[in-house]
Amino acid sequence: MDSDFPQLPERLLLGPGPSNVPARVLEALSRPLLGHLDPAFLALMNEIQELLRSVFETANRLTIPVSGTGSAGMEAALVNFVGPGDPILVGAHGVFGGRIADCAQRCGGEVTTVRAPFGEPLDDAQMARAAEQCRPKIVAVVHAETSTGVLQPLEPIRRICDRYDSLLLVDCVTSLAGHSVGIDRHRVDIAYSGTQKCLSCPPGLAPVTVSDKARECLVERCQSWYLDLGMVASYWGQERTYHHTAPISMNYALREALAIVVEEGLEARWERHRMHHRALVAGVEALGLTMHVDPQFRLHPLNTIRVPQGVDDARLRSQLLNQFDLEIGGGLGELKGKVWRVGLMGENSRPQPLLYFLHALEKSLKDQGFQATPGAGVRAAGEVLLG
Amino acid sequence: MDSDFPQLPERLLLGPGPSNVPARVLEALSRPLLGHLDPAFLALMNEIQELLRSVFETANRLTIPVSGTGSAGMEAALVNFVGPGDPILVGAHGVFGGRIADCAQRCGGEVTTVRAPFGEPLDDAQMARAAEQCRPKIVAVVHAETSTGVLQPLEPIRRICDRYDSLLLVDCVTSLAGHSVGIDRHRVDIAYSGTQKCLSCPPGLAPVTVSDKARECLVERCQSWYLDLGMVASYWGQERTYHHTAPISMNYALREALAIVVEEGLEARWERHRMHHRALVAGVEALGLTMHVDPQFRLHPLNTIRVPQGVDDARLRSQLLNQFDLEIGGGLGELKGKVWRVGLMGENSRPQPLLYFLHALEKSLKDQGFQATPGAGVRAAGEVLLG
Repeated sequence: MDSDFPQLPERLLLGPGPSNVPARVLEALSRPLLGHLDPAFLALMNEIQELLRSVFETANRLTIPVSGTGSAGMEAALVNFVGPGDPILVGAHGVFGGRIADCAQRCGGEVTTVRAPFGEPLDDAQMARAAEQCRPKIVAVVHAETSTGVLQPLEPIRRICDRYDSLLLVDCVTSLAGHSVGIDRHRVDIAYSGTQKCLSCPPGLAPVTVSDKARECLVERCQSWYLDLGMVASYWGQERTYHHTAPISMNYALREALAIVVEEGLEARWERHRMHHRALVAGVEALGLTMHVDPQFRLHPLNTIRVPQGVDDARLRSQLLNQFDLEIGGGLGELKGKVWRVGLMGENSRPQPLLYFLHALEKSLKDQGFQATPGAGVRAAGEVLLG
Repeated sequence: MDSDFPQLPERLLLGPGPSNVPARVLEALSRPLLGHLDPAFLALMNEIQELLRSVFETANRLTIPVSGTGSAGMEAALVNFVGPGDPILVGAHGVFGGRIADCAQRCGGEVTTVRAPFGEPLDDAQMARAAEQCRPKIVAVVHAETSTGVLQPLEPIRRICDRYDSLLLVDCVTSLAGHSVGIDRHRVDIAYSGTQKCLSCPPGLAPVTVSDKARECLVERCQSWYLDLGMVASYWGQERTYHHTAPISMNYALREALAIVVEEGLEARWERHRMHHRALVAGVEALGLTMHVDPQFRLHPLNTIRVPQGVDDARLRSQLLNQFDLEIGGGLGELKGKVWRVGLMGENSRPQPLLYFLHALEKSLKDQGFQATPGAGVRAAGEVLLG
């Protein structure tokens, strides 16, 4: 019978992820299936691990995609290392830091949480004092807070870890392939990401990397069977011991998305994200809007813009979606209704999506009586793009 | 740049899953992405839930695909209901029953395991005695043991549950859409499956269904954040509360695979699996081989055939793969080296894969000096197919 699959709208996805996926990746996704122990699939798994090491900037042997979305990566990063009573220090400067604390508690950890206002990085002195008190086994932070648009500097956190020989755990969901994550440079011990942000791959896998030092600190018996990295590593390693059936098609897609990143080159890709971020800021400010985050801590792939007074957040986002087929994100947690989250991630960190967004934003603001100099946003962004 | 995606062999997948995926499903998989809160995606989620209810034969409100493979479904089915010290009775007549016991222990459950030889169903009297002793909160069994080829009757287990007001938990990974699972008919409280077996969808999602009675028995705080069904249900239900980014593309594929099942009709699909199973058995026996399981307990989608004396298991499977591009499974656990596992699942429960398998098997057996009447397998199977 013919498919009656519903007609889906074609959206430009400039929210906090998923981002749009290039045709090459969609094509890989739809290749015929192989068995999860087929020699041809095992070869592809090896290639994926090599590519992931490049993108994470690491030589870590244990560098694999966990079979779930980014949140499964978070859970795998915690449940294998946090045992009952283990002191864990979590820096939470947004919703996703709060989730780490929640998850670490579910693992039985003694969690100390240092909070920062949504839109600022962590306070180094506060983190240092908390570490002195709790002597953490793990210090966990979010590199790129998708809920606030803040890039957390890793150097001060690294120094704290050195003081107490703590493991450094970093959420790289929104930074991987958009900023340098420098896993080996920062001696990050445990990191996880998602596929649907700057990798421009569909959601469904969570790249995870673990240092040899952290591997020596695995909990004795992981409370999760599915995410037990000891068993998962035996499948991805030389032993090839069957654990669970790998998501074959999603791994095809990830292979292709990573190949695209490596072809472009990491530094070129980071620079592309930086330039389109700068152009976005110029455009947004020329329209008379304000960025939420201080310039020195702004994420490039994910931009938080303050909702101006007198403008209805939900109505504007809904106009962008329905009139322009353009998705952006609303605020999360304490920023709900206060900011828009605009992602220029992976394939979408390009002039076309950016200029179209500024055009659509200007029109939608105008329809709510918010006046800006006509064309000012597009013009200012264009100037940055032209250098 | 052009893709240098490796040339993959085209395999006929007659192992324990993944099975081959029809073009309609691969095509759905490669549709452009939507955001996980896009109204068009939310509508698709509703459709998936409706379709899943049909296939599970249930009216359970909480019937959703968990964002991981079948093993994540198992973990979700346990981690939300098994708390520290909870008495859990697991019937383990194969590897996958053993996994349930392992996972339930990791949840802190007091697990009693009743074992049966690999190739037989559970002993009802033994299960009843164990239940009398441990008064289980949950009785868990595997409906279709993928490691042994046994279909476990659910009626006697249901009666035990009624005696102690226990929840009935059933692994339907290999039975869903190949046998009737009758979730409501058997009053199964918690069930999970995978997408890569009789649904002929790529691996990566785990259909789960939970009765209203079981929902009242959720543990107070699930030790998993990712698989916390309370939070996951709020995203799939009317609230649409963001939890994790759903695997968009895999949900497209699942929608299409389920639509194909419903178009065919469940009873027609079960009957198709029954007929090709019967034909396989006739063919295999005509070649002089022996089925591992007693006729009354044989699974239709997954067939265990004893490796005959003098035949090298690994060499034969490797010949099938390399000469015929045909994958079958080897034995697991105590059946390693003793049986072959041949899946005729979903799209592969058809004359063409079946006859090709019998042809390839005959040739590969012959190359190892195992003689059968030439063409006997294909002829015997053909007779069953022609009625």
